[in-house]
Amino acid sequence: MNVPGLQSIAEMLFSDVRDLSFDGIGVTRESYGRGESATAEYLREFAKQQGLDVHADRAANLVFRLPGSGASPVVSWTGSHIDSVPQGGNFDGYAGVVAGLLCLLEQKRSGTRYRRPLEVVAFRGEESAWFGKAYIGSGALFGKISTADLDLKQRTTGQTMADCMLACGADIEAIRTQQVLIDRSRVKAYLELHIEQGPVMIARQLPLAVVSGIRGNVRHNRVVCHGDAQHSGVVPRWLRHDAMFAVADLIMRIDEHWRVLLERGTDLVVTTGIVTTDPSEHSISRIPGHVSFSLEARSKSTDTLEAFYQLMRTECTAIERERGVRFEFDRRLLSDPATMDTSICDVLSKACSDQGTRFEVIPSGAGHDASLFANAGIPSGMLFVRNQNGSHNPHEAMDMGDFMLGVQAMHSSFAQLA
Amino acid sequence: MNVPGLQSIAEMLFSDVRDLSFDGIGVTRESYGRGESATAEYLREFAKQQGLDVHADRAANLVFRLPGSGASPVVSWTGSHIDSVPQGGNFDGYAGVVAGLLCLLEQKRSGTRYRRPLEVVAFRGEESAWFGKAYIGSGALFGKISTADLDLKQRTTGQTMADCMLACGADIEAIRTQQVLIDRSRVKAYLELHIEQGPVMIARQLPLAVVSGIRGNVRHNRVVCHGDAQHSGVVPRWLRHDAMFAVADLIMRIDEHWRVLLERGTDLVVTTGIVTTDPSEHSISRIPGHVSFSLEARSKSTDTLEAFYQLMRTECTAIERERGVRFEFDRRLLSDPATMDTSICDVLSKACSDQGTRFEVIPSGAGHDASLFANAGIPSGMLFVRNQNGSHNPHEAMDMGDFMLGVQAMHSSFAQLA
Repeated sequence: MNVPGLQSIAEMLFSDVRDLSFDGIGVTRESYGRGESATAEYLREFAKQQGLDVHADRAANLVFRLPGSGASPVVSWTGSHIDSVPQGGNFDGYAGVVAGLLCLLEQKRSGTRYRRPLEVVAFRGEESAWFGKAYIGSGALFGKISTADLDLKQRTTGQTMADCMLACGADIEAIRTQQVLIDRSRVKAYLELHIEQGPVMIARQLPLAVVSGIRGNVRHNRVVCHGDAQHSGVVPRWLRHDAMFAVADLIMRIDEHWRVLLERGTDLVVTTGIVTTDPSEHSISRIPGHVSFSLEARSKSTDTLEAFYQLMRTECTAIERERGVRFEFDRRLLSDPATMDTSICDVLSKACSDQGTRFEVIPSGAGHDASLFANAGIPSGMLFVRNQNGSHNPHEAMDMGDFMLGVQAMHSSFAQLA
Repeated sequence: MNVPGLQSIAEMLFSDVRDLSFDGIGVTRESYGRGESATAEYLREFAKQQGLDVHADRAANLVFRLPGSGASPVVSWTGSHIDSVPQGGNFDGYAGVVAGLLCLLEQKRSGTRYRRPLEVVAFRGEESAWFGKAYIGSGALFGKISTADLDLKQRTTGQTMADCMLACGADIEAIRTQQVLIDRSRVKAYLELHIEQGPVMIARQLPLAVVSGIRGNVRHNRVVCHGDAQHSGVVPRWLRHDAMFAVADLIMRIDEHWRVLLERGTDLVVTTGIVTTDPSEHSISRIPGHVSFSLEARSKSTDTLEAFYQLMRTECTAIERERGVRFEFDRRLLSDPATMDTSICDVLSKACSDQGTRFEVIPSGAGHDASLFANAGIPSGMLFVRNQNGSHNPHEAMDMGDFMLGVQAMHSSFAQLA
């Protein structure tokens, strides 16, 4: 593998796309929107210049392959997503697409071919930041986008998901009727390279890691607690219906259940990322009448997610009775946990070992497009590349040396698949 | 007393000022700002037409009196404030000014005079909603406005309090050097009529109530809890520094202390009116890194306020250690509790009895300009008028019949004072 040559192409691909999506602080590549489409256009041009075939699928994701491999009855897939959170980092998602493209270019340069042809996908709409819904591009391929999803509004523009997808050329009628838009029998494996979003690999000095499984999650984008807004000085404690005290009570009950569940060895994390009293009416001297908040639980186990969710709802009912408030829930969103295919994990592990790269097998706390492939019965695997400062922020820091080790391991793995 | 004649004047005064400060939802009379100044101008015109003397004091409050009473060596004062919260109600504050003006007009009409002349004050800047600081107009008279206060910024325009006061004609240098701008030995009593802001009088069917004392408060307009913002899926519970869980923990510890203090018979209410994760960075899938909130405790006892405050700070220190977060406090604001003068309470009570109006003696949970007079050693009293739906909202509902009963009781009380 021509590492120096491929690395200089990778550096150009990262630098150009960073420039075209830079927002002054980080990168902004809106799902089925401006920055994401600009990236797609750039990649389409790049592929043509390099003599790769490129086409958009019916969910407006881009698919790249070597010329002449279009008719292959079985293929391997690789890729990741090209959108980002607002003011996000350049590597989350996009690195996996670059890695796939380098694997195509390496075959082209060397004149060799993997036994099973490779297709590289650049997914749209993986990040939930824009519509409050993740895996839109990959989900659409598996018929997982509902009419309710299509009505979700973009956080900035207020446009519906349906309108945004349509503007990017997606087959919105097929998606709305939840048709499966991918030939599952043809895609024999899905491998995804991604930066690690947590602190484990830095702490353990691992350039690469093989992912054993992906946490699922259960979410409400917006729960509203309704109390009674009153002057803060004139209502005694026993006559109050303070929406903020009620939400604090709920969070502390959740925290206690979480602690107990962890002591039993359960895998679980819980987050209330957005909490706010109502800005149109809150003031220092007013008992909060309305508090809205988001709620998310993640676990490797669907049973744990379900059990935790029911506990949470039971506590809400108790708090409603005790504090005279009312909780109003929006639609519950569920993303299933996923287990990576053990033989693909073995192939990835062997590739790391063979090239002498330190690695471990670790779970993924964050969700990825790979979970949809795994849950659709397609053998799937993921390779993490070490990354500093977490993700979803402009301070992501992936070393190019680590990245090229990852590309090498992916390349060796594809060469093994048949 | 010519009740029908005075009532029609009152109706006009309420209706005109409501019209000139209506914002589409409620009334908006900014402290030392637009709506308040428009109200002051209107009242100045009204007073001139009615042949009353009117002048602005050095804090730009308006003072009304009968012509020829300017040289009186001793006077009684009455009045209230003419500002309102954003989208507030028409009666909170303003009703007390109207009541005072009617007492002047009744003397003028009947040709009688109180033994001790009456001056009516229309205070500016009583509401904390605009600058995060209450009692600006009355506080300035007593040298209670500091340089730090004068630097506070108006919530909408961002102008400093100093600039806003200057634009209204206040003597900003005298205020900055905390000179006392009122001759305390000349003002022998301060009486204030105000709508009740709580639910007690409606529940007990009391048109009027005599106020025994006013709760003080201790406040922080803005406390920030600093944690560590991270991807919600990748950081386990024991490595989290979740600012929202920390704030929820604090609120629940406060709630528990509050409950225990009440069981000991302590007078206390606690409110976190504004709580919010940082809108520039919060998202469903991000552990909150920063949460800001307001904190207010009110009590009739300074000792209780101080003891509660120290408990709260101790809990913050404990939470900092346990959860790896940091609390950052802005300037602590303290308004002293106040006790109303018992002989003035007796005069007000007798006036209610004599006219056959049901009343009780009750404490005031909300703060009022009267507390500054009481704490400056000026014998003070307050009369509450029944009001539905609380205050600080457009749904305030004071019956004009109740109001005129209040005006009558004020009138009889002033006639007694000598």
